[in-house]
This record gives sequence, C-alpha cells and structure tokens, in this order.
Amino acid sequence: MVKVAICGGSGYTGAELLRMLRLHPKVEITAVTSEKSAGKRVTDLFPHLVGYEHLVYEQLDRAELVAKADLFFLALPHAASQEAVDFFYRKNKKVIDLSADFRLASPETYEEWYKTPHHYTETLKRAVYGLPELYRKQIRKARLIANPGCYPTSAILALAPALKKGLIDPETLVVDSKSGTSGAGRKADLSIAFCEVNEGFKAYGIAAHRHTPEIEQEISKLAGKEIALNFTPHLVPMDRGILTTAYGRLTARIDAETVLKIYRKAYGDEPFVHVLENGVLPNTKFVRGSNHCMVGVKVNPRTNTLIMVAAIDNLVKGASGQAIQNMNIMLGFEETTGIQHLGMYP
Amino acid sequence: MVKVAICGGSGYTGAELLRMLRLHPKVEITAVTSEKSAGKRVTDLFPHLVGYEHLVYEQLDRAELVAKADLFFLALPHAASQEAVDFFYRKNKKVIDLSADFRLASPETYEEWYKTPHHYTETLKRAVYGLPELYRKQIRKARLIANPGCYPTSAILALAPALKKGLIDPETLVVDSKSGTSGAGRKADLSIAFCEVNEGFKAYGIAAHRHTPEIEQEISKLAGKEIALNFTPHLVPMDRGILTTAYGRLTARIDAETVLKIYRKAYGDEPFVHVLENGVLPNTKFVRGSNHCMVGVKVNPRTNTLIMVAAIDNLVKGASGQAIQNMNIMLGFEETTGIQHLGMYP
Amino acid sequence: MVKVAICGGSGYTGAELLRMLRLHPKVEITAVTSEKSAGKRVTDLFPHLVGYEHLVYEQLDRAELVAKADLFFLALPHAASQEAVDFFYRKNKKVIDLSADFRLASPETYEEWYKTPHHYTETLKRAVYGLPELYRKQIRKARLIANPGCYPTSAILALAPALKKGLIDPETLVVDSKSGTSGAGRKADLSIAFCEVNEGFKAYGIAAHRHTPEIEQEISKLAGKEIALNFTPHLVPMDRGILTTAYGRLTARIDAETVLKIYRKAYGDEPFVHVLENGVLPNTKFVRGSNHCMVGVKVNPRTNTLIMVAAIDNLVKGASGQAIQNMNIMLGFEETTGIQHLGMYP
Amino acid sequence: MVKVAICGGSGYTGAELLRMLRLHPKVEITAVTSEKSAGKRVTDLFPHLVGYEHLVYEQLDRAELVAKADLFFLALPHAASQEAVDFFYRKNKKVIDLSADFRLASPETYEEWYKTPHHYTETLKRAVYGLPELYRKQIRKARLIANPGCYPTSAILALAPALKKGLIDPETLVVDSKSGTSGAGRKADLSIAFCEVNEGFKAYGIAAHRHTPEIEQEISKLAGKEIALNFTPHLVPMDRGILTTAYGRLTARIDAETVLKIYRKAYGDEPFVHVLENGVLPNTKFVRGSNHCMVGVKVNPRTNTLIMVAAIDNLVKGASGQAIQNMNIMLGFEETTGIQHLGMYP
Repeated sequence: MVKVAICGGSGYTGAELLRMLRLHPKVEITAVTSEKSAGKRVTDLFPHLVGYEHLVYEQLDRAELVAKADLFFLALPHAASQEAVDFFYRKNKKVIDLSADFRLASPETYEEWYKTPHHYTETLKRAVYGLPELYRKQIRKARLIANPGCYPTSAILALAPALKKGLIDPETLVVDSKSGTSGAGRKADLSIAFCEVNEGFKAYGIAAHRHTPEIEQEISKLAGKEIALNFTPHLVPMDRGILTTAYGRLTARIDAETVLKIYRKAYGDEPFVHVLENGVLPNTKFVRGSNHCMVGVKVNPRTNTLIMVAAIDNLVKGASGQAIQNMNIMLGFEETTGIQHLGMYP
Repeated sequence: MVKVAICGGSGYTGAELLRMLRLHPKVEITAVTSEKSAGKRVTDLFPHLVGYEHLVYEQLDRAELVAKADLFFLALPHAASQEAVDFFYRKNKKVIDLSADFRLASPETYEEWYKTPHHYTETLKRAVYGLPELYRKQIRKARLIANPGCYPTSAILALAPALKKGLIDPETLVVDSKSGTSGAGRKADLSIAFCEVNEGFKAYGIAAHRHTPEIEQEISKLAGKEIALNFTPHLVPMDRGILTTAYGRLTARIDAETVLKIYRKAYGDEPFVHVLENGVLPNTKFVRGSNHCMVGVKVNPRTNTLIMVAAIDNLVKGASGQAIQNMNIMLGFEETTGIQHLGMYP
Repeated sequence: MVKVAICGGSGYTGAELLRMLRLHPKVEITAVTSEKSAGKRVTDLFPHLVGYEHLVYEQLDRAELVAKADLFFLALPHAASQEAVDFFYRKNKKVIDLSADFRLASPETYEEWYKTPHHYTETLKRAVYGLPELYRKQIRKARLIANPGCYPTSAILALAPALKKGLIDPETLVVDSKSGTSGAGRKADLSIAFCEVNEGFKAYGIAAHRHTPEIEQEISKLAGKEIALNFTPHLVPMDRGILTTAYGRLTARIDAETVLKIYRKAYGDEPFVHVLENGVLPNTKFVRGSNHCMVGVKVNPRTNTLIMVAAIDNLVKGASGQAIQNMNIMLGFEETTGIQHLGMYP
Repeated sequence: MVKVAICGGSGYTGAELLRMLRLHPKVEITAVTSEKSAGKRVTDLFPHLVGYEHLVYEQLDRAELVAKADLFFLALPHAASQEAVDFFYRKNKKVIDLSADFRLASPETYEEWYKTPHHYTETLKRAVYGLPELYRKQIRKARLIANPGCYPTSAILALAPALKKGLIDPETLVVDSKSGTSGAGRKADLSIAFCEVNEGFKAYGIAAHRHTPEIEQEISKLAGKEIALNFTPHLVPMDRGILTTAYGRLTARIDAETVLKIYRKAYGDEPFVHVLENGVLPNTKFVRGSNHCMVGVKVNPRTNTLIMVAAIDNLVKGASGQAIQNMNIMLGFEETTGIQHLGMYP
C-alpha cells in the first residue's frame, strides 16, 4: 500500500480524490490537510464520504507531513502551491500538483497571467504536464506532475489530432467552453450563490482567463509554432461538466468520416478518450462523475470549418480523476485502477 | 380595442402571448386555437394564466376565425403556417407569423433547409422581417410580419453594428449560441425529458440548424455580400434564455470602448436593446421574462478578434414579446405597450 | 404620485419591490438604501432593473430619509428593523415592515424565538399583521403593517378556512413546507452556494424555525385556542416558490367537494387566492413571479385526514408583492394595482 | 462468474444495474432485453455505459433467455412482470423483481391498488420482500425477491426502529416524501418535460399513490396491527434522490439523543444505513449515486412529536443498488460487492 497525503482536502477536488481513492486497492490515505477545517473530521464537511469517519483534517505542517506519505496530492490555491510542491519534491517525494503553479514552462508567462512571480524555476523544469494522452512516457518517469486545468484538458483533447495532422489552420482557432459551477470551487461567494447562477447563462473572463496560456502552450507545441487563440469560458447552471466547442478553418477539403478516422487512430488505445461515431455529439451528462472524455467532430463544408467538441467532468478528468490516472502511471499501476467507474446518468 | 386571435395557443409562445397581452390595454383576445386541446379552457392547460378561465381553445377553422379578429398571431409549426398566413393575409387581416415560413426571402433557400416547398411566394414577397431595430419603418407599413427566430434575433443584434461599420471580416464569423430548453417547444419527447436535459450540456445541429440561413440572410445584407457563417446551437439546462457569443476577426486595430461607442450609437434610442458598459457582460438571467436584449463586447488584441455577446429571453424578445412589439408598431401604439415589465431575478 | 422609500434595497425582496413598482402608476420611488452598496447605482447590482439607471443606493440616514417619502418599505434584517420602524412610524409616516420584528403580538414570544428583546412594545401594539385575506379592514386603517413571513402566508392561507369552520382538529396539525432558495436571501454563504444546493433536497430547522410562532399565533386565533404545531421547512433546488402541505385530522366525515365549497366561499372574492378544482393540485410553477396563491385540498378517508396544499412565490405573495398589496389597501388604491401580472411559465 | 440477465434494460433502473454491475467482480451480464430497442447496442441508448459496446438489446424471448443466465433482474412495468417472474422462477432460476408485482403479500390488496388481478398467487407466496435491513435471513434463502419500491424503502427505514420500540403511535403517522424526477421513469411524457418540472414543486397522488399499501404492509408488521397512514409524494426538480419526512406522536416523553441510541442500535452493523448525529439532518445530495441511506431524527417537545428523516438515491438504494445488494446476499457474496462506491458530491 502506497501512503498518500492530500494537501488541501476541503474543496471539491480534494473531496473527489477521497471519493475515488476509497476504492483504490493499492493506496492508503495517511493525511489530509485544511487550514480552515483542521480538527474536524472529513465526514463533518462531507457526509457523503462514508468510511472516512476516522480521518481528521490537520494543518499543513510540511515538516510533520513529509514522513507520513510517499506521494502528495496538492489541491492548494495557485501561488500557495509553489512552496509546498518544491518542499515535497526536494524531500524526494512524488508530487501531483492540481494547482496551476507548475503547468506553464515559462516563468514569465506564469507571472504575466497569474500576477505573481515563480520562485522555484529549477523545480519548475522538472515538472511534467500531466496529460497522459500526450505525455504518458514522461509521466512514467516523472516525480512532479503539473496536473492540467479543466478547460485545457477538454480543449487540448478536442484539438490535438487535428492540429498534429495539420488539418486546421492554427491561426483561426476559436475555443468556446462551457463549465458547470463546481469549477469555481467551494466557497462562500455571492457570484456562485444558487439564485445568482441557476436559470442563468453567461460568459466570463473573455480573452483574459488564466487557462488561455496553458492551452496555447500545448497547442503551440502541436502546431509547431506560437499560437494565440480565442478562448471564452461560460458558466452553466449545473454542478459538473465541461463542454468545449472548438472551431478551426480547414486547410483542405475533407469530410467528417476521414477526420474521425484520424481521431480514432490518435485515441485508439486510450482507456479514457472516446471518439464518437459520425453524427453523434458529446454531452457532459455522458461523463458525469467519471474520468472519461468524449470527442465528436463535424465538418461545415459551407465555411470549410472543422468543429470539434469534447466533454469531460471538470472535477474528474479535469482534475482529481486525471490526478489519480497520473499517479497510477507514475507508480506503475494499471492506469485505470480506482477510476474505472462509469458516468452517472441521469 | 383591437380584436386579436392566436392560432396555435397551446405551446409556450402562445402562452406567452396570453400572459403579456393580459396587461395590454388596447387589445382584446377574441379567439385562441389548438387542435389537440380544442374544447379545453386555457386555464386547464395553463393554470398560471389566471383571468383566462372563460377562454376556450377552438379548432383552427379559418372561415369562422376570420370574422373574429383584426390581427392574427400565428404560432403554428413551420409548413403548417404557410396556408393560414396566406389565407388571413388575403382576407385583409394583419398577420404576425411566429413560424419560420415567411422569414426567408428566397423560396429556394426555404425549401433547401426546411425540406418542403413554399406554396405562397407572392404573399412571401409582402412579408417584412420583424426585427424592429433593423426594419421599424417597414414594419409600420406592413400587413404581414415574419417574426424572427430566437437564435437569429440574438445573433443579428449582437453582430449588426460591427458588420454595418465594417469592423469585422464577415468571412470569419463564428456564432456560438446557447439556449434554454423552452426553445424546443412544449411536447412529449424523450430528448427534452427533465432527466435527459438536467445537469447536462450539449451542442446539437452543428452546421445544420435551420436558423443558419435566416442569420445569413440578414448578415449578408449588413455586410453587403453573401456570407456563410458557422452557427452552433447548444442546449442549456434552464427554462429560458439565449446567450450568443459571436466572434469576428477585426479589420483594423480598435479598442473595446470605441466599439462600444459605435454600438451605443446604433442602439441609442432603442427601448429594448441595451449596450452594457465596458467590462460588463450579459447574462440571460438579466432579461428573463422580459423583452429586453443586452449586448456586451470585448476585444482580444492578441488575436485581433472582436467578441460580441447578446442575451435575450427566447420566448419573449426571441418570440412572443417581439411579436407584440411588432403589433404595437403596426397598429401605431406606443412600442413598449404591454411589454414594459422587467426581467424576473432571481 | 405617492413618494415611497425602500430601506434595504439590495436584497431580493428589495429588488422585487423595485421590479414591480416600476409599473405602478401611482407611486414614485424617491430613495433606496443599502449600507454595503451606498453610492452604487441600482443597475450596478441588478442589471435586470432597466430604467433605474439613475437611482443610487444611499446610507440609511433616517433624519435625511424622513423628508423624502410618505411611505416606507423596510426590508431590513430582523432586530435591525425595530428602531427604523419605530422612528418612521413616530414621524407619522406609513410603514410596511418586511422583517419579522412586528409580526408577533407578544414581545415575550418574540424574544424567545428571536433571542433579542423587543424595544418598541408601544409601537408593536399599533402594528397590523398584513395578511389582507384575514385583516383587510384593519390594514385599510393602519399606519404600520407587519408584512407576513413567506412560510406563514402559505400555511395560513392553506389552513384558515378549515380551522375557522372546525373541520380539522387543531391539535393534530402537521405543516410540511418546501421553499426555493431565494428565501435564504442574497448573500455570500457556503450553505447556499450553487453546488451545495443544486441536485439536493433537505429539511432544516425542524421544530425550531422562527416562522413557527408566527403561524401558531394566527392559527390559534382561527382555532379559538392556543395551538402548537409541527412545522418543517425544506430547501428546494429552485429559485422561487413555496409549497406547503398541511395535514389535519378531520373532526367529522366529509368529502373533498364539500371542503372545496367551504374554501371557495372563504376566498370567493379574493383577487389573489384561487381554490383549484377537485383533483387539481397547486404547483409553485403556476404562481412564479406573481402575487397569486393557489390552494387545493384532498381528503384521505382511510385515515380521516384533510390534506391542504398551497403554493405561492415566496418573494411576491410571500414578501414584496404582498407588501405592495398592503400599500394599495392602505392608500386606497385598487388592490391589484402594479401586481396584476401573471406567473411566468415556464 | 454468475451469469446474469436483465429484462427491461432500457430504463433508468436497467441502466443503473449495468452501471454498477460493470465493477462487480463475480458477475457476468449475458443478456439484456428491451422491446423497443431490440437490435440496438446498449451504448446507442446510453453512451455513458462505456465498455458495453458489444452488448445488444434483444427481445424478451423467455424460452431463449432461460438458458442464458442463472439470475434474472426484472425491470419491467408492473403487471407485465408477473408472468416473466413466474416463468423464470419455475425454471429454477433466481429472480429479483424490481416491479411492484410481488411486493404485496395480499393479492386482493394488489388488485385494489394496481387495478389488475394477480395471476400467480402461488409464486407470490414464495417472494421475499427484499429489504435487507428487515429480512436479511429470508433473503439469504430466497429464490424470488420482490425488490422494494423507492418511497417505501425510505419510509420504512425512517420509521422502523421507532415503531418496533413503540416510541410512536402508529395511528398518527404522516409520511411526506419528496422525489427527484427519475422516479417517473425514462419516457416521452409532457408531464416530465424539462420546462414542466424545472423551477417547480408539486404534490401528486395524495392519498392515492400505489406505494401506500406497500408502506402500510411493512409498518403494520412492525407496529403489530393494521395501520393506515397518510402518504404524500412530491416531485422535486432534480434528477435523483428521495427525502422522506415522517411524523409520529410520541407515546412517552423522550429526547432526541435517546431516540438516536435506539436507531443506532437498530442499524449498528448495517453497511448502508447511517444514523446521523444529533442535530445533523440528511440531504439527498449526500447519497446521490450510492447505495447509502442516511437517517436523522428530531423531537418536538412542544407537540410531543417525533420527526424522522431519511434520504436515499431512488435509483440505487431505492431500486438497482438494493437489487444488487439482494443478489449479493442470495449468492453468498460479500454484501457490499460492486456497490461500495460513495455518493457523488457535488
């Protein structure tokens, strides 16, 4: 049994780690931290986590924690995560960071978008971007994983095969994403109060959302040149799920079936990415609670545009599920261990 | 008191006409039809329509109806509307058609997208596209109004000032729209069952939705050339509201404030279109139940793209409210009569 | 035009007063207060309140406010309302208090349930409980209205005719109520965050909710003796609406149609209370956004129990709409002025 | 590997059986039937059921099916289930019937409430009511399980310990239940269309719901005499979950802590029933997607009433999860196999 600690376990991603690791046969949770809820039991905050009655939140005392676990999940706010990641990494622990702090290879880009400097640029160089579909080999050998953001996971999985094959002009990309409200985190905030969100739909952070440079970093690698794209997130009145609708001008005439073949080849052996049949489009409801990602495409011959659609659960494939997937790869476990469960429908 | 009849009064748009006309001081509803519910009282179907206890649905018997009213609202399915519109129009009645049958000036385009021929091309020539912000003068003199579709209303209001001024390249348009479920109508259909829609989000009809040629028709006029665009509708788990996020490559460097000035000038005197301040974006929740439309814009200087966002209530400004607005203009009433009420929040 | 001020205008009930008074032809809003939002425009907080762009929140400076209006709506938190009510009342203003501070005739009961003493017991004696269906005559002559709570409005309207006629044993009452989330107010609070409320259903405050003594006070008057009842509120994942299901053991064998006749007689001329036909039951969706209340009953002959069900919109008939109804009665206006609009469906 | 067939696999309970059995290590699904969807793949109807791409719906041909499996789950409509149950039972198969056909021991009561006679009264005598918390011993030896209804499961688990100990007077019971919409099944029906259900709350089937005699049957056994109770179901605008609030007059003065001790003793070893601490109340959101049931109680000393609250997921502990629990008991597996997963929150 590998000993695992969760730093920042009182938010939704922390709770999701606990929910899923409960059924993981090779992992034991030895500590969970929360500054605000230290001293409380996990089940005081989350009565649904039946079986965790004896696990009590503690302060994030790094010196004390380091001896308790071999692998650390960090679900801390960005900026706050930097120091803790660096600390555990230097103590030769395996670290999976769910914050944004180690996702951007360029410390300058990080500072530009997150308005705070990066203090651990040496450790940053060791970080592997934890998208298994692109970086499985590197993850296998890594000790520090920067777990991807929720929007980037959906956008990159939607775009990757088309960009890699040069099907679309990367200068024309529009990424229009829609997320459930859990993406905003678990907090007392008027803007996510039930009556403010329910029965409403809005865009936010247009051309300014911090996931933009993360998507651009990966897209640029795939396209082989520096790409800036249009990214617009929207808030959906539902708990979970991200649907990303991406548009790119086709570089040549092609039909949907041919595009789908390329996608199927790209994702053929992937346990969690599923290319839908021609005419079928993803729905976030198909992946709710699961680590699966569904991708569909459509060609608009009238505008010569490829429309790519991907659906994930933002808290699972977009956060905690992918983190466990990365853990499985790092530790040499079967990649699907503990995250094989299917989506909940309805 | 002008006598008004509603043909097709058992759907959501019919019910909305009844809800709003209840407070209209210059109109009297003399008949309402429904094939399936003939003989039932309006309040049997819609208990919320307090005060309509004595109004009973009747069959759509045109010969009998024609004497009962001076103005006819037709909320019938497309194709079924053609003949009724033609009939009442030829009987010298005023007609406001909420179906799609008289929106497309080209009968060929109509047949191509609706898979049924147009049998009344002479009457079609008399129809005025009932978007008051573009065609108020023509509406004033019209006897037949083709009431715009819900998606087109939001898309055209979002795009019009930018296209008219040549701010954006019309060859690069992406129109990504999101609609509440009432847009699908009131019917027994598994695909709109609560548990199929709730807590889910999906795209549908990509590059194939019938509102595409309607948007293109109006956009092409504004752009001064034939335009094909990318239009993707999505289904939001909420009752009402459409948010349209539209993207167009800027033809020159410009900032948001300058764009907003152009928008404010374009919509300055409009009673129902409101241009939000720089940095503020529309939310469908701000217009729920009302005839208002809110528009916001954002410039992405990194991609030189203009992002335009518009929010309406699909059943009001996107259907029945706009129909009443058109009626007010046609009949010489104050344009806001009966539709001055504000959105319901929360 | 009567000059009206709203103290506490940044919550949902304040916003609802503004929404509905916009269409009231005999009232002018001269001031609106908010401690937190002083200096901001009403439309900065509530973009849906189109037309209020020039109304700016101010501090609640009583000395300054008193000259600005003839009638004051107070939508302040309980306890905070006491002093303001007393002040404006003594200045010979008309006051409609939406807080709980003047609803309970007994200061002792008030202190017992609200854990704070009542400092204005003389003014308390002048307050009339503003349920028009029971106290229309007294409201007409009143200068101080204690506007009823949302749960009590639904419970009392459901129970009153049966209790008055002695149909049910008041010692056996169970009042099981379910409310939309707007009843919790507009605030930053984790317990009403979207993801905490959505897709969940719970009871709260069982046998301890502060509306209990308010219901008991009115029920006891109707029953002619001191009654304690079981009251359980529940939280429904929706914005608006209260449904109350009340149970009472029948004192004699009776059928539903006979009970309904008694109810219809009791509410026959009421503009806002509607007794449904035998077999039809209320739905909060039928009254959403409106001042209407719908009541239905059912007899269970197997247990000899009467089940009474009432639906209201908690923010309208349960708060701001009823406050305007009370204003209309006090000022001698037609009782339905400004609140005639129908529910929004869907 | 035990071979299992599912008759009626195109509804929500069928899909839930498939979802959960996917992770059951000792069971193999050899057939799944659907009259309407015969010939389609499971994943055509339910794309979330990843891994079932090769399972195809077939007609319910009993003669052919009988050889394919050792245990049959029947998720057919009531009445339609009778004959199939009898057939497989007589063929010496193990049968778990999720319909209502074998729940009521009295064929007369069945006919009275379901308006159809029971044709297999001999087989009916062999059926065991599959509530493990009451009948585990009998289930172990049974070959035919009548899987309990969703409302009865929640009501009986809420009431059982109090009734068994005589804490409450069984003549005074009120059972007020609230269910998510999936309880209505998966079908094209206007009454469960999204826009008809969302943002609304209603009671239905008061004093007439078919789960009434089922609850009464079990309550009567616990109380030791024939009991009729008041049962009111309500429809909640959410997908899943039942909350039952039950009221009973206390037979003696007692406090909540003492009642809770009795409940804890009653459910002490139960893997799926959890008695909450004093002051904590269940929320359907705590059990969503899981087989857990949470129970809380409150004493109202002012009315001397015990209020009991239970929450379950209607599709899991209220249907398919309980069916698998019963299967595990019948087959001698660890009772929690395949249904150990926790609730999904949010």
